[in-house]
Amino acid sequence: MAVDAPALEDAAAGRGRDLLMAKRSEVADWLGLSLPTRDGEITAVSSIAAATEHSVVFAMDAAALADALGSKAGVILAGKSLKIDHVEEDSRVWTVEDPRYAFALVAKHLKGKEFEVGVHPSAIVGKGVEIGERTGIGPGVVLGDGVRIGRDCHILARVTIYAGTVLGDRVVVQAGAVLGSTGFGYARHAESGEYVLFPQQGTLCVEDDVEIGANSTIDRGALGETRIGRGTKIDNLVHIGHNCVIGKNVIIAAQTGISGSSVVEDGAILGGQVGIGEHATVGAGVILGGGAGVLSGKKMRGPGQVFWGRPARPLKEYLRDLARLRKG
Amino acid sequence: MAVDAPALEDAAAGRGRDLLMAKRSEVADWLGLSLPTRDGEITAVSSIAAATEHSVVFAMDAAALADALGSKAGVILAGKSLKIDHVEEDSRVWTVEDPRYAFALVAKHLKGKEFEVGVHPSAIVGKGVEIGERTGIGPGVVLGDGVRIGRDCHILARVTIYAGTVLGDRVVVQAGAVLGSTGFGYARHAESGEYVLFPQQGTLCVEDDVEIGANSTIDRGALGETRIGRGTKIDNLVHIGHNCVIGKNVIIAAQTGISGSSVVEDGAILGGQVGIGEHATVGAGVILGGGAGVLSGKKMRGPGQVFWGRPARPLKEYLRDLARLRKG
Amino acid sequence: MAVDAPALEDAAAGRGRDLLMAKRSEVADWLGLSLPTRDGEITAVSSIAAATEHSVVFAMDAAALADALGSKAGVILAGKSLKIDHVEEDSRVWTVEDPRYAFALVAKHLKGKEFEVGVHPSAIVGKGVEIGERTGIGPGVVLGDGVRIGRDCHILARVTIYAGTVLGDRVVVQAGAVLGSTGFGYARHAESGEYVLFPQQGTLCVEDDVEIGANSTIDRGALGETRIGRGTKIDNLVHIGHNCVIGKNVIIAAQTGISGSSVVEDGAILGGQVGIGEHATVGAGVILGGGAGVLSGKKMRGPGQVFWGRPARPLKEYLRDLARLRKG
Repeated sequence: MAVDAPALEDAAAGRGRDLLMAKRSEVADWLGLSLPTRDGEITAVSSIAAATEHSVVFAMDAAALADALGSKAGVILAGKSLKIDHVEEDSRVWTVEDPRYAFALVAKHLKGKEFEVGVHPSAIVGKGVEIGERTGIGPGVVLGDGVRIGRDCHILARVTIYAGTVLGDRVVVQAGAVLGSTGFGYARHAESGEYVLFPQQGTLCVEDDVEIGANSTIDRGALGETRIGRGTKIDNLVHIGHNCVIGKNVIIAAQTGISGSSVVEDGAILGGQVGIGEHATVGAGVILGGGAGVLSGKKMRGPGQVFWGRPARPLKEYLRDLARLRKG
Repeated sequence: MAVDAPALEDAAAGRGRDLLMAKRSEVADWLGLSLPTRDGEITAVSSIAAATEHSVVFAMDAAALADALGSKAGVILAGKSLKIDHVEEDSRVWTVEDPRYAFALVAKHLKGKEFEVGVHPSAIVGKGVEIGERTGIGPGVVLGDGVRIGRDCHILARVTIYAGTVLGDRVVVQAGAVLGSTGFGYARHAESGEYVLFPQQGTLCVEDDVEIGANSTIDRGALGETRIGRGTKIDNLVHIGHNCVIGKNVIIAAQTGISGSSVVEDGAILGGQVGIGEHATVGAGVILGGGAGVLSGKKMRGPGQVFWGRPARPLKEYLRDLARLRKG
Repeated sequence: MAVDAPALEDAAAGRGRDLLMAKRSEVADWLGLSLPTRDGEITAVSSIAAATEHSVVFAMDAAALADALGSKAGVILAGKSLKIDHVEEDSRVWTVEDPRYAFALVAKHLKGKEFEVGVHPSAIVGKGVEIGERTGIGPGVVLGDGVRIGRDCHILARVTIYAGTVLGDRVVVQAGAVLGSTGFGYARHAESGEYVLFPQQGTLCVEDDVEIGANSTIDRGALGETRIGRGTKIDNLVHIGHNCVIGKNVIIAAQTGISGSSVVEDGAILGGQVGIGEHATVGAGVILGGGAGVLSGKKMRGPGQVFWGRPARPLKEYLRDLARLRKG
């Protein structure tokens, strides 16, 4: 089979996503706009290239706006700062504060239930498991004894959730992730050098609106708990160790690892492949660049402050160090 | 569902772990102590905060000891170096060489069989597979043809073990790990630039008492074998390439990757996100800091010697280099 | 069970691989050689140590050649540059351009179908899925709606392929990999700091002859597609973000991560634990050393050019920087 360009459209068709339909006026309502526009049907968000008269697209700059105006797009979300003198009569252009955010919001409203609710017959459900309303448990999922999952969650194929783990509402877990696994803590015998497992009998709590990427792993607490705060988003192949406390609305990009007992406070942003030692603290709103490393016990503080490098230091210092190195 | 603090206790209860009960005198026996203590029942190890009169806790410093004395804990394991003059009459305080190790040892003795022995009905078992006594094979596990697993092992949910892989006794494999996968070795055609797989027909041997983390991957040998030595502990999302030989009682923290044909000798300790090239050697007892990188073919030697950075160098040199860079 | 040296041979026997048999003359044909040799049977490629008279082995240097000549090997593939005066009468030695490549080619021809064709009864197959001839779908695999898989593919245990993903012919996917997962793109609300998912409604196309390692994850496009080019080989625990375009015959070693919308052109070689930011370009034939880091938006160019370090720079510069640092 040759895999070529048309495959995309075919495949998208094959997916058979259950998209809802909305009136233009409803879409305007979602965005808090009251626009004097003709009405009509909206069925999708799309790229400018693939837009139809029923599509919503967005434009972040003048070039994209020009492209969008040349397309068939039914609604064009454009930033207020864009000069749109020539098109003010064009009822297709809606100006909003943040076109990308508005676009995502329309998509969220437009999309129907993308998954089957209920428990797939191939899933293995332990004793005493509680599952909330409208939650979908995918094929091959394993839920240990006493797992509690809230409402409107989507647990995708082959996720494993260990006994005793608690998930809030609207939690999404991508395929293959492992939640509540045994932490990595050992005590070493002074003479033999042999290791014995430190007890890992705590639990893992994942709060509402958290999303977790494919094949990521989050360990339960040793004696206490591991906690992932409300609204936090975690990418693929991320590792979070036992007893970590991750705040609310934190972003953690792919392949980042957080060692045991560390704290990441609300609104922090961690790039890909970041490494954080044990008992470290990443303060509220701190931004760690991709590949940054935080030593055990360190505290990085300052909302909006960007840290970079291994060991992580303020971006300005990092760039100065790099410049020195290059000059010799 | 709101996920709040009480969830932890409920969840722990929900887990329904089959903890055994022991007399205080038995616990003292496990630790090689003969203490003139009143007897009573011990049912758990716990944090100081959650201790009951049936709990064993441990204290590493004076502050923790004070907390423990103020708790209901039935037994407090404390270091010999701690001044405990004021409490020598308190039969709750037991002095030991290493309280954390003693605590882990009590936990190990206390805990009953935490898993179901036998093969879960949803597991897929190949032809000619041998499984030892008292071993538990979890839901969704896949065992290829000719796999051999020893006694008292615990293979958790959705682990895949490729054909021909051999595991010793008391091996624990966390959910989603892949053992014996095809190694990453290719030969490149000089003109076309196309790659053809170098034969990956060897095997993987995992010795007794090894523990492997969630979603980790260990490839089988190309022509020979990959071997993980007795008592070695491997964290989550670790990658070990084909033909690696890992010694005994080695610690490998999360997201570390070891390329093909490398050797890690007995008692080495590898931090998280360490990267090791091909045909490298990490000597016995060497300690690699988190994120350290060892170039292909390199040999790092010296028991207890700490290496840091990329490329990895002795900690003293690494710190000196860093200081120079900062001074400019 | 003690796991000791003999385990390897037993295990290999246990694997029961269905190796084909070939005449020596056929093997010579596969390599484009016409050698005046006696005929006989060849049943395996092997290490020199394990060679029998029916084995093909290879020798890259004089020492290996001496070893091979001392073994029972039936055919010894040796480089043309090796001085083999003393053995020119030995019909066991065949001189070829690239012995390792020739060895891999013989292995490819020799091996029979190593996997069962058809769909394992434990696999979950969505609606509208198309699977080509002679393809094998392993135990516990999950194929979403509308997935299309070509001919002669091997999808190993517990792989998850999301709805709408398209795979070409002769694609091999190792256990636990996740293909077509939801990309990691969010829009942030300016005031609340809450994130809403940017629509991830595109697809993933994997072209012919691609091989993907255990527990790797590849996200589908957001609005467009993610594409993995023909003949590209991807190791274990690799992450590839949404909308990436990976060229043909690219090598990506273990634990490398490529952020969204980046391009890796034909024939590039990425070492282990490489990190690539968003919207970056790795040019055709570029080589990134293990652990190299490419910043978002950067373009690395030059066929055969080696880049190293974080941020990645030409090897020469990297070594100069390192030397400066060490000298102080």
